[in-house]
Amino acid sequence: MNNPNKKRVFKKKVQEQIHIPELAEKIISGNRGYLSKGITLIESSAAHHREKANELMQELLTYTGNSIRLGITGVPGAGKSTWIEAFGKTAVSKGYKIAVLAVDPSSTLSGGSILGDKTRMEFLAHHPDVFIRPSPSSGTLGGVARMTRETILLCEAAGYDLILVETVGVGQSEGIVRGMTDFFLLLSLTGAGDELQGMKKGIMELVDAIVINKADGSNKDQAIQTMHDYNQILRFLTPATKDWKPRAYTCSALYNEGIEEIWDVINHFIDETKKNGEFDKRRSRQAVDWMNQLVQIRLNETFFDREKKILMKNLEKQVKQNEISATEAVDLLFKSNV
Amino acid sequence: MNNPNKKRVFKKKVQEQIHIPELAEKIISGNRGYLSKGITLIESSAAHHREKANELMQELLTYTGNSIRLGITGVPGAGKSTWIEAFGKTAVSKGYKIAVLAVDPSSTLSGGSILGDKTRMEFLAHHPDVFIRPSPSSGTLGGVARMTRETILLCEAAGYDLILVETVGVGQSEGIVRGMTDFFLLLSLTGAGDELQGMKKGIMELVDAIVINKADGSNKDQAIQTMHDYNQILRFLTPATKDWKPRAYTCSALYNEGIEEIWDVINHFIDETKKNGEFDKRRSRQAVDWMNQLVQIRLNETFFDREKKILMKNLEKQVKQNEISATEAVDLLFKSNV
Repeated sequence: MNNPNKKRVFKKKVQEQIHIPELAEKIISGNRGYLSKGITLIESSAAHHREKANELMQELLTYTGNSIRLGITGVPGAGKSTWIEAFGKTAVSKGYKIAVLAVDPSSTLSGGSILGDKTRMEFLAHHPDVFIRPSPSSGTLGGVARMTRETILLCEAAGYDLILVETVGVGQSEGIVRGMTDFFLLLSLTGAGDELQGMKKGIMELVDAIVINKADGSNKDQAIQTMHDYNQILRFLTPATKDWKPRAYTCSALYNEGIEEIWDVINHFIDETKKNGEFDKRRSRQAVDWMNQLVQIRLNETFFDREKKILMKNLEKQVKQNEISATEAVDLLFKSNV
Repeated sequence: MNNPNKKRVFKKKVQEQIHIPELAEKIISGNRGYLSKGITLIESSAAHHREKANELMQELLTYTGNSIRLGITGVPGAGKSTWIEAFGKTAVSKGYKIAVLAVDPSSTLSGGSILGDKTRMEFLAHHPDVFIRPSPSSGTLGGVARMTRETILLCEAAGYDLILVETVGVGQSEGIVRGMTDFFLLLSLTGAGDELQGMKKGIMELVDAIVINKADGSNKDQAIQTMHDYNQILRFLTPATKDWKPRAYTCSALYNEGIEEIWDVINHFIDETKKNGEFDKRRSRQAVDWMNQLVQIRLNETFFDREKKILMKNLEKQVKQNEISATEAVDLLFKSNV
């Protein structure tokens, strides 16, 4: 059972102790406790915290950007946690400092999180060079996206140079994670063509690579067939990244097979895109896109108060039943302003 | 050379003569001249015309909806006009009244239009049961979308029961046309796998059918191969319409081959979706989506005056250069309001 008082006390503490330049300094120095505090501040919805959080972001801005941002999506059961454990182990052994974050739309409902079960990341969970933070568990998807984006920047300022952002791929979360990462990877399972058909619309055109996990034992042959199927489709689609041909691979996270190959693919991708300028172009495009999204979120929050929301619902119903035209409905919505 | 005075006089005339109930009645009676006048009213951006146009839409609302709305996209050179001529001929011979409209993003720049060249629609251009209207040639893509949507309704009220909406597929115009039609068709050309690769992102997941045109003479074998390639990809994608498997077909609009087959496909589609309820569901979803888009357009128009637009551009530049965070930029944008 949670102790509600505990949370309140912690929040109060954060609020009292906030001295932004000092907090920023501690984060830059790599202090994990202060990094956590910074993220908690970012995740707070209180207005005075939002202001402080902006101040913090501004302080840290010049220390951000120096990482590889890697997005990972896949259906439940694809073995994301096991894969991240295996991949992370490889990265740590090469001297990387890793942050593992998540955008988990379901956690905003259930309060749970896909990263909640750290038992599948036994090694990473206890390694000093690894920082794991579950998805913010409240707010809209847009709100969660904001928090995760800012958390990426905080982790970068704290010296983490490989950021993994995991998402289970419900609703629009893949698009959101694609929009904040450099390389986007779909973790899939073995399966015949029929099983591929259930795939989410548009996902194949977001990815830089597809990895078919659990390619071991009696699964192996089928996994290789699935890989060929994916490669067949990928040939026909417009790649997500200019001048990069996405390909499918197989691996077994459980037996640590094929992980090194994917590591090489990602590094090759980073090298290539840094050389041809796509890396930087994507980063600045993402920042501007993000700013535009924030503007839209704010515009809607400002316009749609409780009354407007109710009116909108009623008007939608009338439009659906062809009682009024869409244009007329929108006129009524905006006239009610005066 | 255009006579600018001519246009002004015509506009003035429209304005003077507007008596909405009478205009509505004439449109419902099938008078083509008044239908054109109604559309001109809809395309006017003057505020008092907008009000009159809304009034007209409201009058006609109960007379709308009784048509098949067919979207057609394809690259320049795919033979859209020739295909529409052949398809339209078939439809007319079966007793349909046809309206041919266009959403042409390029015409907002050039003032030209993909339907401008009526010489390729010799038969349709002179047939009493056919009404052809080029794309509105001014306004934003959102504005053009509004006009075309309302023009569809006007044509329906005037008794046209097959509406063809053509688009060249630049930018987001396919998505817009998909969003206002029941059946969406991609007209393509013969081409090896390599040529398919240049296809627009996401287009394959919008279509209900793909038609490979110019499948005649020495092109025929290659067209059939292309058809197989397309079918291969379509197998793996999520269909645009529930319980409908999009397929590729070949045809020769020039030699009038394969047109009847596509006619049957479309009719089969309409039957099936009316039976399983998807037809009506899509229509009301489209109306509500459209209303939501209009709300977003209005919110942005209201917020972004000249000064705000300039400020936004400047802030975007700063965000791009990592001088300020996106959140901070948006704060500044909204604070400048007070």
